Amino acid sequence: MKPLLLISNDDSIYAKGIKELVEIAKEFGRVVVVAPDKPQSAKSHSITLDIPMTYKKSNIFGDDIEAYAVSGSPADCVKLALNYLLKQKPDLVLSGINHGANTSVNLIYSGTVAAAIEGAMHDIKAIALSLTTHNPDADFSAAKIFAKKIINETLNSNIKNICLNVNIPNIKYEEINGINICRQTRGAWFEEFDKIEKPGSKENYFWLTGKYVNFEPENTDTDVWAIENNYISVVPLEIDFTNYQVLNKFNEEKFLKN
Amino acid sequence: MKPLLLISNDDSIYAKGIKELVEIAKEFGRVVVVAPDKPQSAKSHSITLDIPMTYKKSNIFGDDIEAYAVSGSPADCVKLALNYLLKQKPDLVLSGINHGANTSVNLIYSGTVAAAIEGAMHDIKAIALSLTTHNPDADFSAAKIFAKKIINETLNSNIKNICLNVNIPNIKYEEINGINICRQTRGAWFEEFDKIEKPGSKENYFWLTGKYVNFEPENTDTDVWAIENNYISVVPLEIDFTNYQVLNKFNEEKFLKN
Repeated sequence: MKPLLLISNDDSIYAKGIKELVEIAKEFGRVVVVAPDKPQSAKSHSITLDIPMTYKKSNIFGDDIEAYAVSGSPADCVKLALNYLLKQKPDLVLSGINHGANTSVNLIYSGTVAAAIEGAMHDIKAIALSLTTHNPDADFSAAKIFAKKIINETLNSNIKNICLNVNIPNIKYEEINGINICRQTRGAWFEEFDKIEKPGSKENYFWLTGKYVNFEPENTDTDVWAIENNYISVVPLEIDFTNYQVLNKFNEEKFLKN
Repeated sequence: MKPLLLISNDDSIYAKGIKELVEIAKEFGRVVVVAPDKPQSAKSHSITLDIPMTYKKSNIFGDDIEAYAVSGSPADCVKLALNYLLKQKPDLVLSGINHGANTSVNLIYSGTVAAAIEGAMHDIKAIALSLTTHNPDADFSAAKIFAKKIINETLNSNIKNICLNVNIPNIKYEEINGINICRQTRGAWFEEFDKIEKPGSKENYFWLTGKYVNFEPENTDTDVWAIENNYISVVPLEIDFTNYQVLNKFNEEKFLKN
């Protein structure tokens, strides 16, 4: 039987990136798209609990691609797909192609990554794909060639629990040096808030801005290093957030045991 | 100098749980509260990027506690506090006390846990605290006794990178068997969607419901086991989501290297 590929994203069903992803995914099997009906960037793994959700069938990808626009977050979309819209468990959950990088700490804010993790939480192989530019009309041609290779190997791999966070540098195909299997970079945002005054009021509003700082620019096994050196970064993710090193230290030092 | 404790949550500044947390926290030093102005449960680590935020000073905790109600997510609150409202880096970020458990996979959806992680991302010790009942008028008296012990040991510990996910069973003090240092339980939600029809329309709306399934009920070193056996669970968290086991397997098997 042909593989079933579920596609979502966080830039909404109307983004260019998801259209490009559908185009390559359909070469591997049957594609169903379940994606937000409006942009959901930086929504992380939020889900809709307090209000009901709705969806509309869409023919935005043509008559041969089943597609739904959902009034929820990326994680909501994957849940609705797996538990209601699809009659069969997909072989792969794809999320993206995101307009903008999701490297280092950014993956925690990312709706794109959340959709892939939601798939993995349902025991399905999953890939989040991002291109390192926010340009809505970005050129995905190099990204598509590599995405195809990554989808193919993921579908065919015997390794269990594959959940990948893939970032693709926004450069020409010939300039890409290859694919780096790597880890999430240690780093953080040093934020600032632009203060603006509400017209006709004394109330202040704040717009989040900031600067990303890489805590380990010298290490070549990280996703940020890969992108900065024209490699595609592939980081396998897990959904156990336990810090085992600290856990062992707690037990050694009898933390909270006195 | 007295320690500075920053407090946030996801149930909003008006919840009972945060009031109880302020009461114990102020015994340790100066307390500043920066919390959402409306409930933000299940908002995960979402942040506000597309619209500006605002805040209002609040005297809800009395005149001696500096407090702000923010029009954003728990992670937004911590960012605004650390980068704008506070003149000094806090010694501890506290989040909660949440009305409802945040064990196992639920921590990924949790705004309470996100606020603590946001603190840890800024290199500050952090504790997320949850009581295992959604009752808005819950009895926090046992929770407060243990929270005090955990805050005290965390402030005094020499271990770096302490970011704790603490869950407290909703039972009487005498019934609590102690504190378990443990790990995040493997488990998942098996969701259903309640279908409802919009009055006067043919449109269907869906309400997320579901049943949590523990994949490892026999293992006694997990947070769900602790709660079910009347222990307080303390899971140290990390913000590196790399799956090193799969990463090693990828390298061994030359995944994507052909």
